[in-house]
Amino acid sequence: MNIRTKTIPIILTLFFYLASPMKLQANADPLPSWKDGPSKQAIVTFVTAVTEKNGTDYVPPAERIAVFDNDGTLWSEKPVYFQLLFAIDRIKTLSPQHPEWKTQQPFKAVLKNDIDALAASGKKGLFELIMASHAGMTTDAFEQIVMEWLATAKHSRFNRPYTDLVFQPMLELLDYLRANGFKTFIVSGGGIEFMRPFTEKVYGVPPEQVIGSSIKTKYELRDGKPVLVRLPEIFFFDDKTEKPVGIQKFIGRRPVAAFGNSDGDLQMLQWTTSGKGKRFGLIVHHTDAEREWAYNRESHVGKLDKALVEAGEKGWTVVDMKKDWKVIYAFQK
Amino acid sequence: MNIRTKTIPIILTLFFYLASPMKLQANADPLPSWKDGPSKQAIVTFVTAVTEKNGTDYVPPAERIAVFDNDGTLWSEKPVYFQLLFAIDRIKTLSPQHPEWKTQQPFKAVLKNDIDALAASGKKGLFELIMASHAGMTTDAFEQIVMEWLATAKHSRFNRPYTDLVFQPMLELLDYLRANGFKTFIVSGGGIEFMRPFTEKVYGVPPEQVIGSSIKTKYELRDGKPVLVRLPEIFFFDDKTEKPVGIQKFIGRRPVAAFGNSDGDLQMLQWTTSGKGKRFGLIVHHTDAEREWAYNRESHVGKLDKALVEAGEKGWTVVDMKKDWKVIYAFQK
Repeated sequence: MNIRTKTIPIILTLFFYLASPMKLQANADPLPSWKDGPSKQAIVTFVTAVTEKNGTDYVPPAERIAVFDNDGTLWSEKPVYFQLLFAIDRIKTLSPQHPEWKTQQPFKAVLKNDIDALAASGKKGLFELIMASHAGMTTDAFEQIVMEWLATAKHSRFNRPYTDLVFQPMLELLDYLRANGFKTFIVSGGGIEFMRPFTEKVYGVPPEQVIGSSIKTKYELRDGKPVLVRLPEIFFFDDKTEKPVGIQKFIGRRPVAAFGNSDGDLQMLQWTTSGKGKRFGLIVHHTDAEREWAYNRESHVGKLDKALVEAGEKGWTVVDMKKDWKVIYAFQK
Repeated sequence: MNIRTKTIPIILTLFFYLASPMKLQANADPLPSWKDGPSKQAIVTFVTAVTEKNGTDYVPPAERIAVFDNDGTLWSEKPVYFQLLFAIDRIKTLSPQHPEWKTQQPFKAVLKNDIDALAASGKKGLFELIMASHAGMTTDAFEQIVMEWLATAKHSRFNRPYTDLVFQPMLELLDYLRANGFKTFIVSGGGIEFMRPFTEKVYGVPPEQVIGSSIKTKYELRDGKPVLVRLPEIFFFDDKTEKPVGIQKFIGRRPVAAFGNSDGDLQMLQWTTSGKGKRFGLIVHHTDAEREWAYNRESHVGKLDKALVEAGEKGWTVVDMKKDWKVIYAFQK
């Protein structure tokens, strides 16, 4: 053996190591919190099919768009949407500056922890609550308020920060898709500016890939410095039929994979899976009352009824949280 | 010399080649269509400063957001915005199905090429023209219509497709920024769905990085198949003070660099350059009547007045197209 032949294997090893580090890990399970079974199998089969360069189902990387609902799909949504708990905490914080709230609904109900009176105030009450807590400040100030709340507030059942209540199997799924060239987007009914302060750190999803509901903002110069002021007026409510509308407005192309958990995600799943070529739809079904919550048709948040029926008809994957997931939250490992 | 010492240089060469292919091209001019001078120097100085890892002005890649106006900044906008010429062509194409247009303004003016009557119809006329040509079909159908027009229509002065009238120096600038880890976005007063069919191919900007004006759309099932129907109602008009609003809605973080050409870009430039740390603002000044057009304060499209004054006060770079650019369009090379 001369020098030349001895050098070749070293160079080849180095080449493959540097050029494709992912390949070396190909045998490691990318979805370790998913039990082996039909749900995991369906995900892997889809990803393999659309990334197989010479396969009939190949999708070029630029078109590998995956959209995820947030509440109930990436993190929990019980007892109510976390953003509503944020609004309630915010009303309590602001109440010393608003003595009129002591006698005025829905604020009185919030300050007295009167859930029945709050529920009785209906959509109108909820709207007033959201606007009083989410509008009137600059976008920069609102971001700070959200970040402080996320850093200090704790969920009553688990006594942990809300961002601990994200689903470990879904974090792995996000990573797995991105490792396979997908661009992952959040498409949520939740507030776009409520999510953006944490989505990059928690989900690896940058602000520009977050779509959600929003209120109007107004550009102003304050002492010559530009600010955007949040106004108490709805700009876009990103739920149900508006989810495909939001996807088209923000992304401008139809996703190839959609992940949701409720009837609010039905149209996003329809829109995504009815495109040409191979498509993937998945619904997270909350079936685990012990480790998380169990609910569907009768729930006031995350109601899952029509979308569950249509999942059966259309061959969407339905994840049974209790059976399919080894762990729900990372802290339960 | 033993085998080991002989192998090291080979491996090192291979390592640097594979790990950082950009480095090898560091000496090639990334902006060959820009003449050496203050404009080019300002761009290179900025990019070098924010990408210098141990420098005081370093900006992490995730925050390297650059926003570009389209009309007059990336392509020409004379005699009028190209999208208006699209609308006029579209009205003519549709006119056999609309006999009433023969007597009804602003359509009568369009069909008779009566520019004075068209101008007299004002904003209301323009709105009717845009809605009649841009609404009423599905988003998929509209994309086809735009692509067909771009493939066949020609600019009257140059007798070339409109997408040939993009500025070669700006294409190089887009590439240069992306090669340095920037994410490039378009933020235009033009229609978002009018731009998206060509921005990826022409500018290397994917649909999800295009922000623009838009009309409302409605989700519908037609024979069980979902479609998005374009409605004759404004959703968002992305100009002037609404550009920072759109940036915040779609991107969710403040850009570090902004590129425009008219007073419609003033607030986007203010918003971008008033952020913390090193920022960059640039205005393309149309000074070349021979190779392109020369206009500013008095122009009915791309009026540049206040932004030019503020550029001087704030130290934004003002590109003099005639002096700073070796070529304007690639076909003039």
